[in-house]
Amino acid sequence: MSDFLIHSIKDSIRNIPDFPVKGVQFKDITTVLKMPELFSMIVDQMAAHYANMGITKIVAIESRGFIIGGALAYKLGVGFVPVRKPGKLPAETYTKKYDLEYGTDTLEIHRDALHDQDVVLLHDDLLATGGTSLAAIDLVKQSGVKKIFVSFIVELDFLKGRNRLCPPYEVFSLVHF
Amino acid sequence: MSDFLIHSIKDSIRNIPDFPVKGVQFKDITTVLKMPELFSMIVDQMAAHYANMGITKIVAIESRGFIIGGALAYKLGVGFVPVRKPGKLPAETYTKKYDLEYGTDTLEIHRDALHDQDVVLLHDDLLATGGTSLAAIDLVKQSGVKKIFVSFIVELDFLKGRNRLCPPYEVFSLVHF
Repeated sequence: MSDFLIHSIKDSIRNIPDFPVKGVQFKDITTVLKMPELFSMIVDQMAAHYANMGITKIVAIESRGFIIGGALAYKLGVGFVPVRKPGKLPAETYTKKYDLEYGTDTLEIHRDALHDQDVVLLHDDLLATGGTSLAAIDLVKQSGVKKIFVSFIVELDFLKGRNRLCPPYEVFSLVHF
Repeated sequence: MSDFLIHSIKDSIRNIPDFPVKGVQFKDITTVLKMPELFSMIVDQMAAHYANMGITKIVAIESRGFIIGGALAYKLGVGFVPVRKPGKLPAETYTKKYDLEYGTDTLEIHRDALHDQDVVLLHDDLLATGGTSLAAIDLVKQSGVKKIFVSFIVELDFLKGRNRLCPPYEVFSLVHF
């Protein structure tokens, strides 16, 4: 992708200081998603990156991961599988509890969502410390798939989340801060 | 769309009795979304229905509405705007409180997400009583747009939600129970 296009996306992300808590510079992607050209560009560039990797399922993390995740499933012509907060998925699930800065959180995936021949592209909007992604990867691994790739729209390089995922997982992010 | 395709989607929706509470027959669409052909079909049929209506923005309701909503924004080449639970959107919002069977709930939209020339396709996965959709419509109306259409994957006809929305809003659902 040309530097110009990357910069268009990066420049359109809105920075919100002290959200959701003091000291955090929140990267608000809604200002990008509402622009048709930028929305298409994100999907096209992600899909191009994964075009020849044999992806069979997009696994996306609730809630913001669902937006581009859904579009990617359509563009790549593959199935879509949600990873959700506890109590949201109605059938039998695998469950993963993980640590946050303060307290813990839990993610779930349906036990019948994936199978051993699936090549998964895990997608979320943002890579920070990598805790949420690691929990989601653990759920996908419990499902016993063939291979896992991981993608983000935005990566916060200074939090070094990439180092917790890669290796063994190839990580691709469109925009870096 | 051929009856055969509609039936493929309908037959692939999983019914979960007594979820999330006793007496409710929950319609689980995850069994549809994970199948590439059915996922594509949903997006293609929705997009075909709205192809010539001048849609400029998809407004989708958290969280399940984001999945097909994101794919629709891509397919139609328009922007994407999320309607979210309170405290999730970081900039200035319009807020709408609405009644549930027990208690109340609240939805929000960014004040700068839409403008007066927008033609909005509001999307959610399921139409039940219509309460959530009405609240989201109210938020879109506060933004002062030109026109609003409303779409769902699944409509529960016996709850008559359609009668609360239409007229004045045209409602399109792929599958009816």
